[in-house]
Amino acid sequence: VSDSTPLETVTLAASRRTADAALEEAASLGVSVVVAITDAAGELKTLARMDGSPLLSVGVAQDKAWTVSAFGIPTHAWEQLLRDEPSLAALGSGRRLMPVPGGVPLVVADRVVGGIGVSGASSEQDRWIAEAGASAVG
Amino acid sequence: VSDSTPLETVTLAASRRTADAALEEAASLGVSVVVAITDAAGELKTLARMDGSPLLSVGVAQDKAWTVSAFGIPTHAWEQLLRDEPSLAALGSGRRLMPVPGGVPLVVADRVVGGIGVSGASSEQDRWIAEAGASAVG
Amino acid sequence: VSDSTPLETVTLAASRRTADAALEEAASLGVSVVVAITDAAGELKTLARMDGSPLLSVGVAQDKAWTVSAFGIPTHAWEQLLRDEPSLAALGSGRRLMPVPGGVPLVVADRVVGGIGVSGASSEQDRWIAEAGASAVG
Amino acid sequence: VSDSTPLETVTLAASRRTADAALEEAASLGVSVVVAITDAAGELKTLARMDGSPLLSVGVAQDKAWTVSAFGIPTHAWEQLLRDEPSLAALGSGRRLMPVPGGVPLVVADRVVGGIGVSGASSEQDRWIAEAGASAVG
Repeated sequence: VSDSTPLETVTLAASRRTADAALEEAASLGVSVVVAITDAAGELKTLARMDGSPLLSVGVAQDKAWTVSAFGIPTHAWEQLLRDEPSLAALGSGRRLMPVPGGVPLVVADRVVGGIGVSGASSEQDRWIAEAGASAVG
Repeated sequence: VSDSTPLETVTLAASRRTADAALEEAASLGVSVVVAITDAAGELKTLARMDGSPLLSVGVAQDKAWTVSAFGIPTHAWEQLLRDEPSLAALGSGRRLMPVPGGVPLVVADRVVGGIGVSGASSEQDRWIAEAGASAVG
Repeated sequence: VSDSTPLETVTLAASRRTADAALEEAASLGVSVVVAITDAAGELKTLARMDGSPLLSVGVAQDKAWTVSAFGIPTHAWEQLLRDEPSLAALGSGRRLMPVPGGVPLVVADRVVGGIGVSGASSEQDRWIAEAGASAVG
Repeated sequence: VSDSTPLETVTLAASRRTADAALEEAASLGVSVVVAITDAAGELKTLARMDGSPLLSVGVAQDKAWTVSAFGIPTHAWEQLLRDEPSLAALGSGRRLMPVPGGVPLVVADRVVGGIGVSGASSEQDRWIAEAGASAVG
């Protein structure tokens, strides 16, 4: 038994491929978004802000990605959790929990190795774009 | 293709004209408010605090203006957004989102070039005063 | 006279080219760094964190880029300023001023349109890598 | 004997006259600065950011004005104080003390009723501009 254990985390190369796929999807939808990818530790790995995307989205995209890394589920799944159990909102107090669509896990060999967060379009579009990005890894 | 793209942002001259119009409206209503104008990047461009306005309003007016620059819609429009989708409140967590009336976009040639935020009177009056200010540019 | 004035700011395409050039230089030096690019308003436009780069560098690279956007000079020029006038250190108090090598302006048509910040290697290497990135725009 | 005492503080009208005089001086010097005026309580009363002034100066000008309101002496006087007694620097730790030229008291009837802070040009020019502004009240 070793005293250390590996944290499987997305590589820069894979996170950039993720961003490229998301940017391509956003362009095809004709929207301007911010795309952020965090590693398994929740730290920013890649960010790309499209020209004309809202200032607000720079922080929100990062928080969506962090939320995925922090608990391993898509951010839209938090919406249902909070409807079922509103008191869970306290979990996010003073933290960066962002329980709105647009954050999706990056999965390699059944493990969450990071998260992608997208902000700047509608909730539904943010989610599609994030899913398009996430489908580029694995 | 150029490596840079212009972000159109309100001039000092126009932002001072905005403040003057707002202060005049506030005086005609007999209220004391703080008027803040941010540029398209959300940075403070002009501030005027009327004598007797609340201490709390110094920060709130700036946050209303920032909220406009950050997402391009009036702050009172956020009220409806949040009624329809309460989970969107998370977007403001750890940021300066101020989803209450009194913040209005400054628009030049159909572009949002900054925001005006007003605080210190009633919500309705804050909004009127901000709109009076915003009508001075364009 | 218009009520708005353009702030020229780096495009996503140019900022990604900047990042690519910096990453290539880092790879050729055999070091792992974080590369951050901010626009003319100091907001994050692009970030790339190489595998194995220090956690500390995620924030430091962004602060170096911000420092460039905030005052328009390379971060290593602040070192000399502070040697000549130590009291200027107060300018950074409570702000993100990062007066160490590794931040370089992005210049298009003689205007600073953003900044690149690099962190993770030696000060000298951070600066070379940032300069390699900056040379990709213009 | 009353249980309350008046805090004599600069009016909005006088603070705007101060800003106008400072902006005029800056224009005549051909420099772009941020001008901030705080009241006797250190709260922002008036701010004007000239087009093209550095992002860094938005905060620095406010901190210079606050420093004046906070202790009642020009910011350049702090430079001498700190040379004579370096340990005094601790007074500013975690606060907004800005001991560099460009902050000047606003004086009415021998009382400090607020402060003007200027940032964006050379230290010497910042001070001249602040003094030009301060000379408009009293």
